[in-house]
Amino acid sequence: MQKIVSLAKRRGFVYQSSEIYGGLRSSYDYGPMGVELKRNLMNEWWRAMVHSREDIVGLDASIVMHPQVWQASGHLASFSDPLVDCKVCGERFRADKAPRLAEGDDADLEFADKGRAKAAQERLAKVAPGVDFRRVGKSIYGAQGGRTGYVCPSCGSPFLSDERQFNLMLRSFLGPVDPIAEVAKAVEAAVAAGEDTRAAAEKALEASSVYLRPETAQAMFVQFANVLQSTAMKVPFGIAQMGKSFRNEVTVEHFIFRSVEFEQMEMEYFVEPGEGMKWLEYWKEERMTWWSTFLRRDNLRFRRHGDDELAHYSDGCFDVEYQFPWGWDELEGIASRTDYDLRAHAQASGKNLTYFDPQSQDPVTGKNGWRYAPHVVEPAAGATRGVLALLCDAYAEEPADEQGKGERTVLRLHPRLAPIKAGVLPLVKKEGMPEKAREIVSRFLDAGINAKYDEQHAIGKRYARHDEVGTPYCLTVDGQTKDDDTVTLRYRDDRRQERIAVDEAVAAVREALAQGAR
Amino acid sequence: MQKIVSLAKRRGFVYQSSEIYGGLRSSYDYGPMGVELKRNLMNEWWRAMVHSREDIVGLDASIVMHPQVWQASGHLASFSDPLVDCKVCGERFRADKAPRLAEGDDADLEFADKGRAKAAQERLAKVAPGVDFRRVGKSIYGAQGGRTGYVCPSCGSPFLSDERQFNLMLRSFLGPVDPIAEVAKAVEAAVAAGEDTRAAAEKALEASSVYLRPETAQAMFVQFANVLQSTAMKVPFGIAQMGKSFRNEVTVEHFIFRSVEFEQMEMEYFVEPGEGMKWLEYWKEERMTWWSTFLRRDNLRFRRHGDDELAHYSDGCFDVEYQFPWGWDELEGIASRTDYDLRAHAQASGKNLTYFDPQSQDPVTGKNGWRYAPHVVEPAAGATRGVLALLCDAYAEEPADEQGKGERTVLRLHPRLAPIKAGVLPLVKKEGMPEKAREIVSRFLDAGINAKYDEQHAIGKRYARHDEVGTPYCLTVDGQTKDDDTVTLRYRDDRRQERIAVDEAVAAVREALAQGAR
Repeated sequence: MQKIVSLAKRRGFVYQSSEIYGGLRSSYDYGPMGVELKRNLMNEWWRAMVHSREDIVGLDASIVMHPQVWQASGHLASFSDPLVDCKVCGERFRADKAPRLAEGDDADLEFADKGRAKAAQERLAKVAPGVDFRRVGKSIYGAQGGRTGYVCPSCGSPFLSDERQFNLMLRSFLGPVDPIAEVAKAVEAAVAAGEDTRAAAEKALEASSVYLRPETAQAMFVQFANVLQSTAMKVPFGIAQMGKSFRNEVTVEHFIFRSVEFEQMEMEYFVEPGEGMKWLEYWKEERMTWWSTFLRRDNLRFRRHGDDELAHYSDGCFDVEYQFPWGWDELEGIASRTDYDLRAHAQASGKNLTYFDPQSQDPVTGKNGWRYAPHVVEPAAGATRGVLALLCDAYAEEPADEQGKGERTVLRLHPRLAPIKAGVLPLVKKEGMPEKAREIVSRFLDAGINAKYDEQHAIGKRYARHDEVGTPYCLTVDGQTKDDDTVTLRYRDDRRQERIAVDEAVAAVREALAQGAR
Repeated sequence: MQKIVSLAKRRGFVYQSSEIYGGLRSSYDYGPMGVELKRNLMNEWWRAMVHSREDIVGLDASIVMHPQVWQASGHLASFSDPLVDCKVCGERFRADKAPRLAEGDDADLEFADKGRAKAAQERLAKVAPGVDFRRVGKSIYGAQGGRTGYVCPSCGSPFLSDERQFNLMLRSFLGPVDPIAEVAKAVEAAVAAGEDTRAAAEKALEASSVYLRPETAQAMFVQFANVLQSTAMKVPFGIAQMGKSFRNEVTVEHFIFRSVEFEQMEMEYFVEPGEGMKWLEYWKEERMTWWSTFLRRDNLRFRRHGDDELAHYSDGCFDVEYQFPWGWDELEGIASRTDYDLRAHAQASGKNLTYFDPQSQDPVTGKNGWRYAPHVVEPAAGATRGVLALLCDAYAEEPADEQGKGERTVLRLHPRLAPIKAGVLPLVKKEGMPEKAREIVSRFLDAGINAKYDEQHAIGKRYARHDEVGTPYCLTVDGQTKDDDTVTLRYRDDRRQERIAVDEAVAAVREALAQGAR
């Protein structure tokens, strides 16, 4: 993993955000190669989900939506993590992600150094007076697991605060008011009146509060009627959206896997009541097939959600998991959501979010024409996570041969996802080679294929650089080119080279891209 | 303008955000057609600025950056609007956008109805006792313009609060703390200690405050060293970024022109000191040429910023303006920013943000090799505004002919920007026509051209629908198709039709798209 992070920075895929200011917790920027890779992945999704299908249309909604959206969806009340503070080391952590320890089992505490262990020993004497703690170097023995069933992930202590729910939505304020001044005034007044200051502060902010969406999905429900009206789609049909979402994650981990700001590719597929399970099965297969185009199938698997994991309204959910360096983890969730979302927004807004099918019979009245709230199947994929999976899947190190040559790092990205499709390299910077190479680049660009001219350093070094960013095809202009108008086409994966006519170069690469040939 | 807003909603270009909840002030969602139009415009920019050029690379940075970025850039201190409250009607407005009225000139106040005018008269008696006001119906006479030189945009009153600076950045909070609880506690403590509650509230929020970027530009300066290191670019070179920015606009106006959440296409071009003016001229021409591809040249003009408009560090700035229905307004700003940004971030971060040119002589020491902070020329375009300009420019109504036929509304979008490039229409839903039409759609999609199958309603109605969303080419499969494998190609703009072979359809449309033929 560390090698991937390092390559990502060195070659311009992913940088830490605001790095010159020490970075911002779990925020990342996509460099020249990363932005292309992410765009390519998302464009492929859009092509597969929107352009290639008659039954799905696109949407691009605002990140800041009306606060009532999150009220109705349930996010304001319950999109939260259970947070706990350690009474010994002060760490604040997610209860559901903490290391398990059964009640009564030995809880051994461990600290970074002896000094910290000593300080902890003093706090322990106050937190759990009467317990016989023994310190040995950086460790403290004598504690036992408590009723919570978990311990502090930092020091291992079972002495913890109560869990409290921490909402994950990022909150902001809109309108020409200064929320801080409003709060200060309101709290002052509450102090004077002897009222609850926390409640007064909350109330003062209510009118101007907005939230950054924690998922792209809700907009498809909120705009359901508008989309229906402007497109006249017929059930079953879907609305797809890609874009950024934000979560104030307490536990951030695994590079870009879990970050505050991330991109999603979500689609809500509206179906007839009773057909949810059929379409869940359909989308499960469709999505696995799509991911398998770009990632090795044996690094992908389904995980069926257990009944205890399902949201109360959901009647079925599968994750597509990828085998990351730290283990299997979620890439996409495909859920049957019944009619929960449309009903919730219809009720909260008082608007009609139903669908009328003149061809069907109403199953209750038996009459022609059926009006119903469609059920929803949602394939919700992570684009940011997709990029990480692509990097992990593509990264390879090849040892040198017997002559000690050919050692290299290569990114075996699917050709259509590679940031640069064709590197065009003049063997030397003279004899008309740069001009010819630039002319070839133009031909590629005119054909909509991203090619890059590259003349810096020796040819071997240039091949190595293109291997590291995953360029599937390199075309080299050399002395022979001006004689017979041919170039060398080099394949990234097996490094084989072949001679092709300049006039065939664009067609050859276009063909190879279409086939995913490496 | 109202017609464009109406078409935008009816045909799925732009919806009001969260409309079922009454909408969110100045927020918009892009529907099935709008999302394609916006993507096409932004993809064209990316192609022109990044893919087609050797000297520019891309970046995609996070929206939430380290707060010190905005400290160093000056946004925290001075990215603000002057706000004023009207003492008569209570309106809060931007002083710099308010109607002008010279001191001493007659200020006539006007209200929506007589009741409001009467209420205003009572307030006036308190606000300006001793002045002789006369009310006639909804109007009140007797006031005079004050020293501010402007009046309330709502009622015309010159009785106004002092101006106060209102920062436009949206603020949020990161980390596992509840900012509202923190503020409540801090203000309580300040009240007890007799300290300033506003300052105490601010201090309590300092550690967890973050801001949504009000422009995409700063990331290019903050990541300057990383990009330089991972790409080995040579000055002059540029870093380009597209994406969302957020401003808590007090005055929101003109549909999507000024909205809280909007998309930008910005590029920072780093040049040798002393070469700023040369490159400002270059980019001014480049950008006008680009916009002219998609918008009528006589609806575009340059506006040179006067010396009083320039930021203190800028030595030159031009706007590209478009003639919107309400007048000329900004589409893009092209500014020479000297070395202000890189120096500001270098100083604030303590990091080296210079460039070393081994080929040049240091102009001070005369020695080989010159290390300097590059100067910057920035073409900063509005993507959201671009979409609005495209809609305005393309919208046309054509009257009926003498037979009363052919009246239509048509969007004359540049073919490459049109949401759908080719509509493929079976004349009737039988005789193998749908199958043939779907086969043609597949050919287009395989060629990367967005085509849509469309069988709903009569053929005339389908043409009209495609005219309204700007589809430049429609291909109709009819009875003749199965005999000679030809289809009718209909052009959107002049409605001319020609018969072409199915096998030539993709090539014909591809060629027309490349030329922008209509």
